[in-house]
Amino acid sequence: MTESCVFCRIERGELPSDRVYEDDRVIAFRDINPQAPVHVLIIPRKHIASLADLTPGDTELAGHMLRVAQQLAEQLGIRETGYRVLTNCGRDGGQVVFHLHFHLVGGKPLGRFA
Amino acid sequence: MTESCVFCRIERGELPSDRVYEDDRVIAFRDINPQAPVHVLIIPRKHIASLADLTPGDTELAGHMLRVAQQLAEQLGIRETGYRVLTNCGRDGGQVVFHLHFHLVGGKPLGRFA
Repeated sequence: MTESCVFCRIERGELPSDRVYEDDRVIAFRDINPQAPVHVLIIPRKHIASLADLTPGDTELAGHMLRVAQQLAEQLGIRETGYRVLTNCGRDGGQVVFHLHFHLVGGKPLGRFA
Repeated sequence: MTESCVFCRIERGELPSDRVYEDDRVIAFRDINPQAPVHVLIIPRKHIASLADLTPGDTELAGHMLRVAQQLAEQLGIRETGYRVLTNCGRDGGQVVFHLHFHLVGGKPLGRFA
């Protein structure tokens, strides 16, 4: 799975990305097809297919990803104006890449979410 | 703040809600204005205004809220069909109630998210 996973390949540096953050557990990079002026993806370095695949041992990692989103909102200048953080899971969610990722979007008034 | 906060009042049972989950740190209830066949709000019992107000000590709580979302997706029958989990923060996010909440939405193909 991780051999061919696009986000695993980005994590390993085999595919290019515009990285805005990294630490020992998480990386974040700009979406190549942005839906808003600020649109960043936050992913765990380890391969987790989706939110549905989190295990009890991943709880702190999941929280850390949200804290990174919060910090990136500040770093990218949308803390005061506001933003949305979300993850799509499975078919109805419209998940495209099956490596867990949170979208951080902002920089414009955001519309409906469902 | 917590005196008049609608979600604190729901947490205390002063306002009614259709509760679908509760534990010692989190409660979840159906949105009164659902945007999808399944639309649940997951909130911490303690008052945190928004994602922007998480502190380092809240990291595990934030992860726990995502784990509750994952478990509710299964409980409410949308694990296989898919779903979206999101939080709106501030003006551009369209945040209405200033008590941190994650939306869990599913039960139909979801559209754009920004």
